[in-house]
Amino acid sequence: MKSTLLSHIDSPTDLRKLDLSQLPQLAKELREFIIDIVSVKEGHLGASLGVVELTIALHYVFDTPNDLLVWDVGHQAYGHKILTERRKKFNTNRQLGGISGFPRRSESVYDTFGVGHSSTSISAALGMAIASQLKGENKHHIAVIGDASIVSGMAFEGLNHAGVTDANLLIILNDNAIGIDPSVGALKNYLTAVKEGKNPKQNNIIKSLNIDYSGPIDGHDIDGLIKELERLKKVKGPKFLHIVTTKGKGLQQAEDDQVKYHAPGKFDAATGEIHKKSEENLPPKFQDVFGLTLVELAKDNPKIIGITPAMPSGSSMKFMMEAFPKRAIDVGIAEQHAVTLSAGMATQGMVVFCNIYSTFLQRAYDQVIHDVALQNLPVIFCLDRAGLVGEDGATHHGVFDLAYLRCIPNMLIYAPKDEAELQNILYTASLGLKNPIAIRYPRGRGKNVDWKFPADFQKIEIGKSKKLKKGKNVAILSTGTIADNVTQALNGIEDEGHFAHYHFGFVKPLDEKKLHKICDKFSTIITVEDGVTTGGFGSAVLEFAAKNDYVNEIFLCGVPDYFIEHGTVDELQQFCNIDVDGLRSLFSGLLEEEEQDED
Amino acid sequence: MKSTLLSHIDSPTDLRKLDLSQLPQLAKELREFIIDIVSVKEGHLGASLGVVELTIALHYVFDTPNDLLVWDVGHQAYGHKILTERRKKFNTNRQLGGISGFPRRSESVYDTFGVGHSSTSISAALGMAIASQLKGENKHHIAVIGDASIVSGMAFEGLNHAGVTDANLLIILNDNAIGIDPSVGALKNYLTAVKEGKNPKQNNIIKSLNIDYSGPIDGHDIDGLIKELERLKKVKGPKFLHIVTTKGKGLQQAEDDQVKYHAPGKFDAATGEIHKKSEENLPPKFQDVFGLTLVELAKDNPKIIGITPAMPSGSSMKFMMEAFPKRAIDVGIAEQHAVTLSAGMATQGMVVFCNIYSTFLQRAYDQVIHDVALQNLPVIFCLDRAGLVGEDGATHHGVFDLAYLRCIPNMLIYAPKDEAELQNILYTASLGLKNPIAIRYPRGRGKNVDWKFPADFQKIEIGKSKKLKKGKNVAILSTGTIADNVTQALNGIEDEGHFAHYHFGFVKPLDEKKLHKICDKFSTIITVEDGVTTGGFGSAVLEFAAKNDYVNEIFLCGVPDYFIEHGTVDELQQFCNIDVDGLRSLFSGLLEEEEQDED
Repeated sequence: MKSTLLSHIDSPTDLRKLDLSQLPQLAKELREFIIDIVSVKEGHLGASLGVVELTIALHYVFDTPNDLLVWDVGHQAYGHKILTERRKKFNTNRQLGGISGFPRRSESVYDTFGVGHSSTSISAALGMAIASQLKGENKHHIAVIGDASIVSGMAFEGLNHAGVTDANLLIILNDNAIGIDPSVGALKNYLTAVKEGKNPKQNNIIKSLNIDYSGPIDGHDIDGLIKELERLKKVKGPKFLHIVTTKGKGLQQAEDDQVKYHAPGKFDAATGEIHKKSEENLPPKFQDVFGLTLVELAKDNPKIIGITPAMPSGSSMKFMMEAFPKRAIDVGIAEQHAVTLSAGMATQGMVVFCNIYSTFLQRAYDQVIHDVALQNLPVIFCLDRAGLVGEDGATHHGVFDLAYLRCIPNMLIYAPKDEAELQNILYTASLGLKNPIAIRYPRGRGKNVDWKFPADFQKIEIGKSKKLKKGKNVAILSTGTIADNVTQALNGIEDEGHFAHYHFGFVKPLDEKKLHKICDKFSTIITVEDGVTTGGFGSAVLEFAAKNDYVNEIFLCGVPDYFIEHGTVDELQQFCNIDVDGLRSLFSGLLEEEEQDED
Repeated sequence: MKSTLLSHIDSPTDLRKLDLSQLPQLAKELREFIIDIVSVKEGHLGASLGVVELTIALHYVFDTPNDLLVWDVGHQAYGHKILTERRKKFNTNRQLGGISGFPRRSESVYDTFGVGHSSTSISAALGMAIASQLKGENKHHIAVIGDASIVSGMAFEGLNHAGVTDANLLIILNDNAIGIDPSVGALKNYLTAVKEGKNPKQNNIIKSLNIDYSGPIDGHDIDGLIKELERLKKVKGPKFLHIVTTKGKGLQQAEDDQVKYHAPGKFDAATGEIHKKSEENLPPKFQDVFGLTLVELAKDNPKIIGITPAMPSGSSMKFMMEAFPKRAIDVGIAEQHAVTLSAGMATQGMVVFCNIYSTFLQRAYDQVIHDVALQNLPVIFCLDRAGLVGEDGATHHGVFDLAYLRCIPNMLIYAPKDEAELQNILYTASLGLKNPIAIRYPRGRGKNVDWKFPADFQKIEIGKSKKLKKGKNVAILSTGTIADNVTQALNGIEDEGHFAHYHFGFVKPLDEKKLHKICDKFSTIITVEDGVTTGGFGSAVLEFAAKNDYVNEIFLCGVPDYFIEHGTVDELQQFCNIDVDGLRSLFSGLLEEEEQDED
């Protein structure tokens, strides 16, 4: 009889009717349920398996949703979703129109705070706790944060504030010694020492910040957890519980290879074996083009350094870390530090490749402006996961970068159209630039199966665009890999030379020489980008035209001015009308209009 | 015989020729020199007076500029500038064309890292130290950071990384228990306890992060400082020296009122007495319009909360802190936390006014996007010091906000043209909005001497523009207080109804209804803003026109695409051609062109 308990639990109210002695069985079932669904639907596995007992204990002890529970990042919240009215929808996880892979306020009252980026939970829960206090409400407020997330600066800011309040806040440190990659840093070593009993518990960092500390305790001992949570419920003011868990708990392979099983793709639910896709005849991932090219360049240039904030695997910086361990640094989830550290190195003549996902560079925006661009230090920002990222959804799309970087003086911004251009711009940057540069490229694979490595590097001229297709009436200007959608869309139209297509790798500086020619020749211009059109590449073209008194008709294609949800990249591009079919319809429509005008 | 020692010191080389016994006399002279110049030229006083001994000791012990010294924030670096080749230029401090009020790489080799915003020094110096290590150089790297700055998240990120390196980094904590306003937070209380001998030094937070800790020692005892620095020079790896100083040291009034003497304006060098300007008949400061209006609104609405990251005085949040101490919170230099704390409170129905200088909101950009806008929480951001701020210069101008906020979905952006509009938008926001809003207003005073308080509040319609002057040929669209420059410029021209002037308080959403009318009626449109024209208000108008197939000639006035230096606001506006005369020339020129065309 499978799921005898879980199948009767629609909400925490049902959960609380269970006897304490039934909870280990429920934990077993919940774990199996997660494994069953994620094994076929894909998603984040390891983190949720690690907090099965904690999730049950929290909803058992606290009066959710009246008591307010905030999950940091949210990779670990699958069990929470399943226990809070979404068991039957869980198979739609991360799909277009389905539930989000992260907690989301609009999805459920149990999701008190939307997450995705790390280290926000302490601040958010403290805000809730202070609000409750002012309203005279007697609620509990719980932030669950991992050891990889707690090192990020904003978590410290939250702790530093919490320690001077008497807010009813419980911070639970879920210490599994790993984020997506193994945790790093001095605090991590300190926590490890605490776990091993090498540090006096009574005078630790948390205690020094005037927060009641307890633990470390076993996060898989459900009885112990419940007992401790019941005790802490009665402790006034801010308190901190340190629990120790194993990421991937309950699936042997996931415990053994925690990095791979963070989000393993499809796998065999019984054996844990990952369904291997043949990688033969597949084009490379852009991240690997970055990672392997960097190693190649670093061989010849000892000044090259790689910096990643906690994404050695995701960014493929791991190749550089393996090849040149002293010259590639994982600084942990610390984007602000990563950027200013890079700036400091650049002052000493180092050639620093600072790889940060587009969406996470938002965390270091001031450092890009104030520490890098203002001093015109030639730091090389490599922005992986630019554009629409797919299933991770609204929190993770890298669609703002062109707009938020373009307004910064001194910045160069380049979006390669393919793997070869990515290699060549990395090469060009490694030779030494006079300015900082942001190189943005998408999640996933390129298109070139015959990608060779090492490449025959070619230097890219700064600010130069490329003509991809001749034409006489309408100029299509695209930036980045979306060029391929344009090309495919045009391939499906018999346009008899109506459309020209230009690739603007450089969004900044614009190729003004070419733009003058384009504005002179073509009455209509279409810009295409996989970022927001408010302030992005298209706006740059508009600004150029306005400055130079051109009155061409300019039409902007890109991501509209609202947050885009989760789905496959293709689905989301379709939603934004920048997929192949959408662009083809647009182009065909223009062609028909034109023909009608001629009649 | 005044300045017998200091007048012979042009660089640290000269300083190092002095005998140890002469240094207290030098300290006295340096202090007097700073007081003499700042008393007549204005600037930041208290911080530099507090580190006179430390400054001398550092340059005496270390081989600057070969050894690399980074000052955090840089308010305290006047002594450093005077001792490093800029004594004779120091009277040009913060003036147009003169030296910067902050360390700047382009100004001197002794300024190893440009600063202005806080908490960057540890990351920057660690970057330098790792670079030196990789290059095999035997240099010392020193970061001097204050107790107000060290609580900011990025400083913790730097410490967390430093503790797992063997980089030759010395972090000096200049603990004077105050930033611009008194320091706050749990770490501050902890440091105070350490100073008072209440915490065991051997197991402190810094030590827990695997960094060699020494101190606290008296930062005004120059002999003791030099002895300790000499000792630390020989200690390998990252180390941390805790020194205790008094802000304003050596000027009694500055020690007694450290907030006022942070940057006191002109004062009597002998007595310390501040030259009081009569405030009678002066229009109010925008910050006071904010601060006093907030108190007024808060009286009627218990859900109103004020949040400031370390700017109670500068933002005038202090009025709310005095009136409703539980409902106004200074969270210290922690912009990220401030924003997400506000978001957490907003989820519980609180009406949160989060006041952050425009330039410092860059520090919380991701939190604005990810924690506020994505969840569409109606947090009210009050961005003081928007636009060109004057003497603080490139690090502090609030010129990017329109561009970096405009690309965020769900955001409302409003720039009042005067005090009354600021009051009314605060009132409107306090009634409850459906979206987050950013309200930006400038540093300094308004224009309305007859500013009354409490005001007769009027609700502002979201997205509505205002016609300020009728006209028939050219439409001038301005946003924010720069409207007054436009009005004054137009007042000087006999335009016979040529120019219309519209005030777009809302940069987002744009008043599209009015824009349609404007685009239909006027062939030429001029936009005026005191922010960057790359992606700002003017670009929004261009995007509107492009989307709606208008081919008007649109001319953008604003801050050009490079970093603007220091000077008075008037001088800098002149530089950007958005001052009254510059705008008048532009308008007159257009009028002449038009007349010539008619001839």
